[in-house]
Amino acid sequence: MPNLLMSDDLLIIASSEADANLYYASRFLAPDPFIYLLIGGRSYLVMSDLEVDRARAQSTVDEVLSYSDLREQTVARGVEKPKEADVIQTVLLSHGVNRLTVPENFPLAAADALRERGVILSVREEPFFAARGIKTDAEVAAIRETQIAVEEAVDEVFQMLREATPRDEWIYHNGAPLTAESVRRRLHLALMARDCVGQQTIVACGIDACDPHNIGSGPLLANTPIIFDVFPRSSHNRYFADMSRTVVKGRASDALRRLYDTVLEGQELGISQIRAGASGKAIHDAIHALFEARGYKTGKVNGRMQGFFHGTGHGVGLDIHESPRISQSDWTLQAGEVVTVEPGLYYPDIGAVRIEDMVLVQESGCRNLTTYPKILEIA
Amino acid sequence: MPNLLMSDDLLIIASSEADANLYYASRFLAPDPFIYLLIGGRSYLVMSDLEVDRARAQSTVDEVLSYSDLREQTVARGVEKPKEADVIQTVLLSHGVNRLTVPENFPLAAADALRERGVILSVREEPFFAARGIKTDAEVAAIRETQIAVEEAVDEVFQMLREATPRDEWIYHNGAPLTAESVRRRLHLALMARDCVGQQTIVACGIDACDPHNIGSGPLLANTPIIFDVFPRSSHNRYFADMSRTVVKGRASDALRRLYDTVLEGQELGISQIRAGASGKAIHDAIHALFEARGYKTGKVNGRMQGFFHGTGHGVGLDIHESPRISQSDWTLQAGEVVTVEPGLYYPDIGAVRIEDMVLVQESGCRNLTTYPKILEIA
Repeated sequence: MPNLLMSDDLLIIASSEADANLYYASRFLAPDPFIYLLIGGRSYLVMSDLEVDRARAQSTVDEVLSYSDLREQTVARGVEKPKEADVIQTVLLSHGVNRLTVPENFPLAAADALRERGVILSVREEPFFAARGIKTDAEVAAIRETQIAVEEAVDEVFQMLREATPRDEWIYHNGAPLTAESVRRRLHLALMARDCVGQQTIVACGIDACDPHNIGSGPLLANTPIIFDVFPRSSHNRYFADMSRTVVKGRASDALRRLYDTVLEGQELGISQIRAGASGKAIHDAIHALFEARGYKTGKVNGRMQGFFHGTGHGVGLDIHESPRISQSDWTLQAGEVVTVEPGLYYPDIGAVRIEDMVLVQESGCRNLTTYPKILEIA
Repeated sequence: MPNLLMSDDLLIIASSEADANLYYASRFLAPDPFIYLLIGGRSYLVMSDLEVDRARAQSTVDEVLSYSDLREQTVARGVEKPKEADVIQTVLLSHGVNRLTVPENFPLAAADALRERGVILSVREEPFFAARGIKTDAEVAAIRETQIAVEEAVDEVFQMLREATPRDEWIYHNGAPLTAESVRRRLHLALMARDCVGQQTIVACGIDACDPHNIGSGPLLANTPIIFDVFPRSSHNRYFADMSRTVVKGRASDALRRLYDTVLEGQELGISQIRAGASGKAIHDAIHALFEARGYKTGKVNGRMQGFFHGTGHGVGLDIHESPRISQSDWTLQAGEVVTVEPGLYYPDIGAVRIEDMVLVQESGCRNLTTYPKILEIA
């Protein structure tokens, strides 16, 4: 059994605006790539002149090193025109380290340059930081804060749907037909007013909604399911939240009502099985089996997927999709994880339904972080 | 001289929401990583069941392959539990290819898995797609569309500053002091109303502004420079724009006025030198030299950087920071590139000024894509 501590020195090179591991490790936000090192349990950033002062003021690492100072030291040790890998090696040499663990998405160009210089890199599969999955109370509060913005924004739009009037097949509000685009913009504005950034928010109606990642376009249809899937990030706390609701403006057909009730039953089954130690795959399989038992088959029809053909859930935090998964792959849930439970059923001839809550995994069950009601028909 | 075509087969694995090269190559937007291949000049995506139909409808590649179909073929060729690298190799084997060129940021875990299977990967430095730097007319129109949103949003906020009243050191609007946060939110809402997403927008005043990437916080001060640096992405066309303006609500000191005029002179000098074939480094050095000649030195004072200590400009497109650079590094400008020209001077005792326009490089000069006026004082 190798001593894990020996290979536990870490390296990340990324932009923390794009890379959640780096932001998690540094709590420092910058648009361009920078270097994070953990050596002997002590954390470092290596920052350009442009960012070094701000990093010293804002980041949570133990020490912020100046790239240009290190570059000078690198020249002093005989490297004429130091590249980034040489500068990193200067830090490693000063600590007698030549093995580093890096994340799955570590950039290949940087890896090749370090390996050419004799540095031994090993990749750690996600989760790179095991602790990132287990949310602290402050992280749960941050996610819940974002979720409140989601619920308020969705409620604003559902209020608009309540005020709206179906006429022929479209839905009119203030004299104009509501479109996926106009409703999405309204959601985005309501989210932005709460410092949350929504992007690719799904407002998908009719056949669009049968494709789970189609964000939707064109006029919304009366008496037809509309899927709302809203998953913004808070600009100030950086945590995401994620909720889906399916509604009909007007009346749902009996077939659609039955589809909706089945998805809801599947979601409730999933939520009831979530607890520390539960198998994500077992939960996903149980929902699948329920849908099959109710007569809702999954598979290709006329070359197109129908039924329940996405995962049941995913972790939510500094990334919108993070560990763990509740899906065909094998994950054991742990207390403190925040996961979505979002089964869906999609049939072009009946309609599309997805219902999604976000829950906190606990020792003997879970706490639902979503408080928004689930109602199919908006009269 | 090796035949470049021999190594010209390409591979990208990324999420196109996060990776501009992949979005550029596929024009398909998805949140989770997927596979792009260019083999013998023909482009492919390999997509999960969840995305395959949408990719076929929306992407611009020649062919969309099904991951699960390829997985079955991989099992059929004797790989019991195929991983992603095995599935990719199934495609490569069917084309008799075992060498691929990948981008700098190609994920190391995927690279190691492919190399273990005998696939030869070489990294191409940015720009991965040379053509991405040279904007088509449609791309320039998209950037300009985003820029119009920037100018309208900034104008809305400057109008608010015009209506506001300085009292003691703060600036009051509708009875409340304006803060960096409230003004940033107003900008973000104005941008969102135009389908543009602003994040980390800089509204930095006083000492905050002396740190070029400090986004600013707290009450805005009268008679003190406020830097606005606004760089949203359009949600529908995906292109960024970027503009900075520095204003004072009230009166600027003589020292600040002189600093402002010098930055503006530097910016005009930079813009006047931009043309195809020009050296980015020479332009950057010329502005530096002008500032030095005017008595504005760059360097550390009390351990903190002062003067002009960032690049003059960067490419703008599907990324906010992309090739080329106008900075200390060596780049030759090419017709069709869109670059910022944004010199700045930062002195805690005088103030901070940055002025930024975005220009289109042309054969014999450039076209300024920014039409917003540059005015220091807002009365």
